[in-house]
Amino acid sequence: MAERFEIVEKALIRMLDEKKYVTLRDILVTMNPSDIAQMFSGLNEERIPLMFRLLTKEQAAETFVEMDPDAQELLIRGFSDSELKAVVDELYVDDAVELVEEMPANVVKRILKQTDPEMRSSINMILRYPENSAGSIMTTEYVSLRPSMTVDEAILRIRRQGVDKETIYTCYVTDENKGLIGLVTVKDLLLAEDGDTPIQDLMITNLISVTAQTDQEEVAKMLSKYNFLALPVVDGENRMVGIVTFDDAMDVMIDEATEDMELMSGLMPSEKSYIKSTPIDLFRNRIPWLLLLMVSATFTGLIITAFEDALAAQVALTAFIPMLMDTGGNSGSQASVTVIRSISLGELKSSDLLKVIRKELCTAVLCGVTLAAACFCKIMLVDRLMMGQAEVTALVAAVVCMALGITVVMAKMVGCTLPILAKALNFDPAVMASPFITTIVDALSLLAFFTLAKVILKI
Amino acid sequence: MAERFEIVEKALIRMLDEKKYVTLRDILVTMNPSDIAQMFSGLNEERIPLMFRLLTKEQAAETFVEMDPDAQELLIRGFSDSELKAVVDELYVDDAVELVEEMPANVVKRILKQTDPEMRSSINMILRYPENSAGSIMTTEYVSLRPSMTVDEAILRIRRQGVDKETIYTCYVTDENKGLIGLVTVKDLLLAEDGDTPIQDLMITNLISVTAQTDQEEVAKMLSKYNFLALPVVDGENRMVGIVTFDDAMDVMIDEATEDMELMSGLMPSEKSYIKSTPIDLFRNRIPWLLLLMVSATFTGLIITAFEDALAAQVALTAFIPMLMDTGGNSGSQASVTVIRSISLGELKSSDLLKVIRKELCTAVLCGVTLAAACFCKIMLVDRLMMGQAEVTALVAAVVCMALGITVVMAKMVGCTLPILAKALNFDPAVMASPFITTIVDALSLLAFFTLAKVILKI
Repeated sequence: MAERFEIVEKALIRMLDEKKYVTLRDILVTMNPSDIAQMFSGLNEERIPLMFRLLTKEQAAETFVEMDPDAQELLIRGFSDSELKAVVDELYVDDAVELVEEMPANVVKRILKQTDPEMRSSINMILRYPENSAGSIMTTEYVSLRPSMTVDEAILRIRRQGVDKETIYTCYVTDENKGLIGLVTVKDLLLAEDGDTPIQDLMITNLISVTAQTDQEEVAKMLSKYNFLALPVVDGENRMVGIVTFDDAMDVMIDEATEDMELMSGLMPSEKSYIKSTPIDLFRNRIPWLLLLMVSATFTGLIITAFEDALAAQVALTAFIPMLMDTGGNSGSQASVTVIRSISLGELKSSDLLKVIRKELCTAVLCGVTLAAACFCKIMLVDRLMMGQAEVTALVAAVVCMALGITVVMAKMVGCTLPILAKALNFDPAVMASPFITTIVDALSLLAFFTLAKVILKI
Repeated sequence: MAERFEIVEKALIRMLDEKKYVTLRDILVTMNPSDIAQMFSGLNEERIPLMFRLLTKEQAAETFVEMDPDAQELLIRGFSDSELKAVVDELYVDDAVELVEEMPANVVKRILKQTDPEMRSSINMILRYPENSAGSIMTTEYVSLRPSMTVDEAILRIRRQGVDKETIYTCYVTDENKGLIGLVTVKDLLLAEDGDTPIQDLMITNLISVTAQTDQEEVAKMLSKYNFLALPVVDGENRMVGIVTFDDAMDVMIDEATEDMELMSGLMPSEKSYIKSTPIDLFRNRIPWLLLLMVSATFTGLIITAFEDALAAQVALTAFIPMLMDTGGNSGSQASVTVIRSISLGELKSSDLLKVIRKELCTAVLCGVTLAAACFCKIMLVDRLMMGQAEVTALVAAVVCMALGITVVMAKMVGCTLPILAKALNFDPAVMASPFITTIVDALSLLAFFTLAKVILKI
């Protein structure tokens, strides 16, 4: 499908260059704004305004919202005041807020000049909420009803107000002070048998709402748990201030999963897509953790230095260091990633620490014993028999396998404990994933290995 | 919030044990089915049927759907035929399919006996679609309209049929052969100025649909990209067979992100939640990769053995092995995770390989030079000056730092290339993440290190 799409894209660009504007317009009118926006991200700077002016008014606004900030800025700089107003008038409040957040100050000034006063005050209100809060991703455009209205009156109100609302399917019932008292869906309204039924008889009153300060990840989780189209956002006095819709929740969910994956692999989270990132951007996201982890590997180096004499006496031991370190790292990251994901899906709480440790300990013993046994066979068969390394005795193999078993158990313990502790201390558990844990586990496993070697092999 | 919820839970269980059924019922009726289901997962076996029988009929069905399979099975085994029928009658087709897929054969037989023939044939049809396809997660319950209907007739039809449909907000316009020709939203219908307007004048005809064979991840991505409430599923002849709704897409998105994270950290993906997994389950998911990676570390061991003489001549080199390996592993997994995520978000295609390699090469050189410089300073200051290790000369430091720079560049190249190649060969790119890449990079970095050491230090 992606390939077919590229062919269409190329054909459209050719039409633009050949000035076949009428045909082009006929094709564009059949396309979805998201697809048109995707095409824009591949256009060069001169073509963007040309192509944009071929869109219908409604399409233009919807496409504009889906475009990446660079193309948006380019277009706005080229817009006349009336063109800018035409686009801004069609924006929903939450999209306008996103635009304002991403544009440079002088562009923002022009945008705000073209917005009507009501929209401007809504934008300003939303901008005051902390980043990543429900307030910062909500929209103020929802349908509100009164409890005393009848079903027919409510439908009439939706018909009158609905055009400008992001969703009309869930309507919120508020009292005269904007206090949230119930909700009613358009389905309930349409399926109601009597048009004279008052809304208060129909509305659901066991409401689930969030406050404007609730974290956006929490909001997304709730929308997905309850399968709602939208979630009402209230202030400290239960007064309705906005709604968060399911499509924004989906975006939050995708972004949060990406952020977790980035943190887990030692990357600073970035807002830019990979395609748009320059090598300098990537360098900035990656070098902090690399430097930190390189420096912290000094400890592992020190441990090896401390046991240099033992190693010199039995150089064969060195060959097993990578295997021990890698298995430790893998065991630890398996445990930490499982636990981190469970925490972020809301299945695990800090209070489950003991339960998790017990479960991981059993798993670790099972894994450790299996790996140690397999490793013993491998060493005796491959290293000793096939490769003919006489210095790899059964005793050396035993030391390696004991160290391996201990490493696996320690790795799983560190791997499951650190994310939960991080959560309890209000840090992001995702930071406690493989790179961080690998460094700790490396040091522990080398210590175990050399100590065992000294004691058992008497070197 | 989670804590408050636990307090409520405990209070409800106490009421159940004290047989305060009337109060309990009054409280349960105000609760959301998802929350009630969550509470059930903490109840012991005797309490589950007791608590369930206190729910209202509608609540019972909605709660049942949200419960975990173990509790569902327990309840069904205790149900009379009429109790089972009451629950099954209220299920949407897609929920019924999920239930049938998860229950053992004898339970499935009882369920199917209680479903009406139409539902049964829908269930059977959906079950025939391949796992993870659009067909397997769709529902057959949608509102279909005819192009010749008027707006008023359409609204009347929705009122008559809507109760049993999963969503009424997007209605699909089909011809007499079920061929999909357009869609119309309830918003369009409500906002239409004239009730006599025929649907064909109102409907959107530039449709976006998927086939029943489309991968569920693709479907979820499309729903999120276009912000649709539902996506129509058609067969090879463009005949409508069902719809996939946004809430199922959200679940797919969460599951796919979890699966990617699991694969990335060397875990076999699991359907069971962490809480429900026994140590044996966890062991089964973890041991295959651990064993594979342990055995593949043999190569790294062989490389060290091959250079044993060089190492014996300059034992100080051993101390830098962990730092080299860890930095290589981290650099590689940074690149691979970034690329894997971009692929799964649909930003990167296999054809972008060269572009990616160029970008990663620049990034790698920047990271490599920075790390090598930092490492040189660290070695000269910490290892040589502070720790007084006389054998760590400037030449040794130079060898380590050159090996480090080369390792970083190789790691980033391997890390960015393998996922894209995997994608091109139709494997899941997520498998090509840290554990796998670490093993390859370890071998490469040790080879570079020892070769440089031999040449430059002449050992």
